[in-house]
Amino acid sequence: MIVVMKLDSGEKEINDILERLVKEGLSGHLSKGVERTVIGVVGRTYPELRETLELLPGVEEVIPISKPYKLSSREFQPMDTVIKVGDVTVGGKELVVMAGPCAVETEEQLLATARAVKAAGAHILRGGAFKPSTSPYSFRGLGKEGLEILVKAREETGMPIITEVLSPQDVELVARYADILQIGTRNMQNYILLDEVGKTRMPVMLKRGMSATIQEWLLSAEYILSQGNRHLMLCERGIRTFETYTRNTMDISAIPIIEKLSHLPIIADPSHGTGKWYLVAPLALAAVAAGADGLIVEVHPNPDEALKDGAQSLTFENFERMMAQVTRVAASVGRKLAGNAGTQLASPR
Amino acid sequence: MIVVMKLDSGEKEINDILERLVKEGLSGHLSKGVERTVIGVVGRTYPELRETLELLPGVEEVIPISKPYKLSSREFQPMDTVIKVGDVTVGGKELVVMAGPCAVETEEQLLATARAVKAAGAHILRGGAFKPSTSPYSFRGLGKEGLEILVKAREETGMPIITEVLSPQDVELVARYADILQIGTRNMQNYILLDEVGKTRMPVMLKRGMSATIQEWLLSAEYILSQGNRHLMLCERGIRTFETYTRNTMDISAIPIIEKLSHLPIIADPSHGTGKWYLVAPLALAAVAAGADGLIVEVHPNPDEALKDGAQSLTFENFERMMAQVTRVAASVGRKLAGNAGTQLASPR
Amino acid sequence: MIVVMKLDSGEKEINDILERLVKEGLSGHLSKGVERTVIGVVGRTYPELRETLELLPGVEEVIPISKPYKLSSREFQPMDTVIKVGDVTVGGKELVVMAGPCAVETEEQLLATARAVKAAGAHILRGGAFKPSTSPYSFRGLGKEGLEILVKAREETGMPIITEVLSPQDVELVARYADILQIGTRNMQNYILLDEVGKTRMPVMLKRGMSATIQEWLLSAEYILSQGNRHLMLCERGIRTFETYTRNTMDISAIPIIEKLSHLPIIADPSHGTGKWYLVAPLALAAVAAGADGLIVEVHPNPDEALKDGAQSLTFENFERMMAQVTRVAASVGRKLAGNAGTQLASPR
Amino acid sequence: MIVVMKLDSGEKEINDILERLVKEGLSGHLSKGVERTVIGVVGRTYPELRETLELLPGVEEVIPISKPYKLSSREFQPMDTVIKVGDVTVGGKELVVMAGPCAVETEEQLLATARAVKAAGAHILRGGAFKPSTSPYSFRGLGKEGLEILVKAREETGMPIITEVLSPQDVELVARYADILQIGTRNMQNYILLDEVGKTRMPVMLKRGMSATIQEWLLSAEYILSQGNRHLMLCERGIRTFETYTRNTMDISAIPIIEKLSHLPIIADPSHGTGKWYLVAPLALAAVAAGADGLIVEVHPNPDEALKDGAQSLTFENFERMMAQVTRVAASVGRKLAGNAGTQLASPR
Repeated sequence: MIVVMKLDSGEKEINDILERLVKEGLSGHLSKGVERTVIGVVGRTYPELRETLELLPGVEEVIPISKPYKLSSREFQPMDTVIKVGDVTVGGKELVVMAGPCAVETEEQLLATARAVKAAGAHILRGGAFKPSTSPYSFRGLGKEGLEILVKAREETGMPIITEVLSPQDVELVARYADILQIGTRNMQNYILLDEVGKTRMPVMLKRGMSATIQEWLLSAEYILSQGNRHLMLCERGIRTFETYTRNTMDISAIPIIEKLSHLPIIADPSHGTGKWYLVAPLALAAVAAGADGLIVEVHPNPDEALKDGAQSLTFENFERMMAQVTRVAASVGRKLAGNAGTQLASPR
Repeated sequence: MIVVMKLDSGEKEINDILERLVKEGLSGHLSKGVERTVIGVVGRTYPELRETLELLPGVEEVIPISKPYKLSSREFQPMDTVIKVGDVTVGGKELVVMAGPCAVETEEQLLATARAVKAAGAHILRGGAFKPSTSPYSFRGLGKEGLEILVKAREETGMPIITEVLSPQDVELVARYADILQIGTRNMQNYILLDEVGKTRMPVMLKRGMSATIQEWLLSAEYILSQGNRHLMLCERGIRTFETYTRNTMDISAIPIIEKLSHLPIIADPSHGTGKWYLVAPLALAAVAAGADGLIVEVHPNPDEALKDGAQSLTFENFERMMAQVTRVAASVGRKLAGNAGTQLASPR
Repeated sequence: MIVVMKLDSGEKEINDILERLVKEGLSGHLSKGVERTVIGVVGRTYPELRETLELLPGVEEVIPISKPYKLSSREFQPMDTVIKVGDVTVGGKELVVMAGPCAVETEEQLLATARAVKAAGAHILRGGAFKPSTSPYSFRGLGKEGLEILVKAREETGMPIITEVLSPQDVELVARYADILQIGTRNMQNYILLDEVGKTRMPVMLKRGMSATIQEWLLSAEYILSQGNRHLMLCERGIRTFETYTRNTMDISAIPIIEKLSHLPIIADPSHGTGKWYLVAPLALAAVAAGADGLIVEVHPNPDEALKDGAQSLTFENFERMMAQVTRVAASVGRKLAGNAGTQLASPR
Repeated sequence: MIVVMKLDSGEKEINDILERLVKEGLSGHLSKGVERTVIGVVGRTYPELRETLELLPGVEEVIPISKPYKLSSREFQPMDTVIKVGDVTVGGKELVVMAGPCAVETEEQLLATARAVKAAGAHILRGGAFKPSTSPYSFRGLGKEGLEILVKAREETGMPIITEVLSPQDVELVARYADILQIGTRNMQNYILLDEVGKTRMPVMLKRGMSATIQEWLLSAEYILSQGNRHLMLCERGIRTFETYTRNTMDISAIPIIEKLSHLPIIADPSHGTGKWYLVAPLALAAVAAGADGLIVEVHPNPDEALKDGAQSLTFENFERMMAQVTRVAASVGRKLAGNAGTQLASPR
């Protein structure tokens, strides 16, 4: 932390700050420039100290120089985190694709989708049982029944399942069914929920809040990690901007940034990131080219009859086409899709 | 809902849409322009229908024409909602001021602040017992002990208390102590929590999400109202923009907009709205001039020793000065501060 | 400027930076903390040095500690800038109101508006002759003819006129007619135009770019001031955010911030700031309560027949009502409206 | 255009609107729903009509249903625009790469860069002679001398040159030297400048304004096209958001969107889009994977001594590495880089 003094600050004000630092168990290192005096704070600081020092007389500004996150940083752990989910590993060399409907609607819908995405090469099945909806009058998911349908699909296809958990009370329930717990964008700063999934030892995918900076996102990751759960992956899903053509603005640069700042795997969600099905494939390819460790994509047997997010869902055919493209782009950046034993499963269909 | 057809759409596509509408129990009303055909949808639609119709061949765009919120709208209830909290009414002619520290730290800190803000004319005591913090390494509040200290302050000063509830499990606990339940900005779309406070019959203050549009905010209000709890007030506390000088950009226009669109009282929070103590008074005055029904302001005995949000907290002296200004500006727009019997309390100090 | 070294940087890297600073005619002041080494740069730096130093090996981050603007800062000039425009002064104790149509359409329209706003207490007449329009198919103003109509209105009413200049070539022409040159939001970073108005010695009003930070705005001011023109006022007119209900989000906090950082007068434009006529009065009052030195407001005889920005224009009646409210709110914060000899002019109407 | 009436609007209000439409040479088509009446406007409308109608009594909202841009739309011209620049074509099957320093600094710097980027496969040389700078105290370019240096580099390497024009007065001068005129982000709504480059018949690259929606960007394109200049390409260079880690947020989805909405070629600028050299390659690859027709990238012999934008400039080595990757990703999406006879030039180095 660096304390920048005002142009007109005097000896007394500087001394007061040095004394204050001593009271906090820290020390100050003075540096007088032509215009300004600057005090480097030596010792272990804490986030609130910044605001406190900024209120002292003579202080222009206090500048933090350490990153506030630790456990999620590359400095703390230089090696990539690799997470085992069933037979699949997330965060390694191979690219992982999660696919399925926005919401679990019926057994038929989910099983049909599971078979189709598996056949097309997907590794993990997504599907919401508990759905956050902007309006209370919209479909809110099948709840526990949805979880049971997901399990049936896992039994049939062998694909691990990822599904969202909305509330601390539900963590135990959802953890009994799911292979990966998803924290949605609206809950990225629901700290009680983060604590709760942090107490499990299950894989968690933390979506970026739609107005969260990368630093805030890593601080939310820190909640989960600091509870002892290291099986954490992040998911870029678009941020809120002034542009209205897309539902969100997908921040593709977040992918190489996370890779630089953190050891955690980074997944891209082009479905929510754009909100329009015809933008999903181009943005999926962009994400892979930029270095994403995986994709999560919405697929529906009949997008125009989906109870939720039909506009951003791919048909089976479009998903298959996207997977072929993803395979080629992945190869062009030195990665390949993980195997999913997809062809063997063709027979029971 | 209006379905706008593509320039090159044909009879078949139009007929398919008309048939689809009939399947949904609706009907379509055709209107052929020079360039485009437009279909007005007649009947009770639902939000998801928009996305569905947009996927049908020949459709350019589907435009909703009804507001998605009902119970919070002026059309549903033309008269202002007025909420009784102890002796105070929120949403009536009189202006209400809530003040206190960001977080309850100690009994001394809270009691001193409670007395000071009461003496300066405040009506309701604020203070966080459960604190959401961007970093897990920051102070997270005293919890139940904080609630007990708040109750002591209420007993002594007679001021009702407002405090945040972070989690559905805590609603019952907090409701036993508080007079108003506060839902913070990070939880505006924590729908399980909204359901839970909606099931109580206690006054609730719903802060705007930092990246929520006004429509999304009213839809979150709808969650609480649709559970049967009508004792709801809204709070503008700044939105996230590209400007970094302030912590948030306070959207003062939200105040007259809420007044126009909704019957719910609207409170302004210039402390979080700006993040800097020297901007609190000017923005408080602006909010009152623009028609706010009340203010919520952070006050601390020693902002430079606060455990949380010191930078945006007023000293007792600055709060007193602000209250004098607020009183004058309120009068200039035809409002006055509610009484709080403040002077009588001067003696026990 | 402060150079923050990486955790793992070594002696050699530190020495290279110190040598580089010497090459730049600067010196470095070393400060070793527990975790990091930090180098304070001593001497006169320049903006590009930051990027340069950040590229050197071992550097984590370079943090500027001086503000990049000089002439517009309070530190450079503690006393408020006060600008004489005809009989009116902008930036002094008295509040100034500029009013008139978005665009000059006809002599009748402008004269009628000029008389009405003068009678209601306005001091300066606004009206666009050269109009920037998002679409090339929209009305782009009457050009020179519009300037001539403005002059007629000035002759009749005695009100100075403010009008926009769009292009460096037009500065001389517009300067011959206008009393204040307006630089619009889209041109805040049109540096050639800023240079050009900076070369005149005429009063200039610089609107904030719709996506400009306060610092960038002051840097644009610096272009004009550094050409020697000190007759500069700033105008907050709303910034671009994710909220779509209003045309822009009016950043009321910019008013006290500019007052703190700069000596330049600050005007508020609630018409463009909101884009809706029924929000103009509440936001005008908010701006005055927050300390604005003046207002600029769009008024039109028949907003529903305006060629431009009808939706945000006040009728004569609404403007009159707003002026009465503004007078009261101004008084409540210790200011009053400048006189405009309005009543005397009543007779020739 | 569709006029949505208020819930409580009556016969008289509806009739007034129908009459008003007739006065405007239009007609109205009535559609009564269960809740609301809606009037479809038949005939050629203009943008301002929307605001006008919204002011009429009984009107809730007016919704435009035609896109406001014409000449830039796919509906107007289904076939891709392909632009010849010297031997290179932009907008065809082949990918085009523009590279060079942010600013022309010296002949040595530019020639060295030109040779290096040519050798690495670039097709067009970029370099600023007139530089827009946020601060007046920063380097503003060599002006005409810079143009002359660019021409020397063209003569030696055979590469066409792209350079920015800042001011209408300079269009003629810059057009005499350059092969492509660049309109920078700050000038996207400098309409006088757009008119001026529209009057030439030279290739123009129009960068997206940092806070411009895609629709506004296409409307600015419309200025140039409607002056008769069809040799227009667009350039996505990042938009302004709340994220501060990157200089801008590169909106990769704008690439497929432009491809869908418009026939104009779309170029991506990952240097300004990110502001950090180590993000340039990943975002360049993402842009190509998403369908960009070309790239524009900043390259400098010694980024740490650049007078401008060093932090986002690639070294020769990094550019060469990026080109190899771009070639592979382009191939994976069915495109290849245009030839540039690069290897032949290797000898004179």
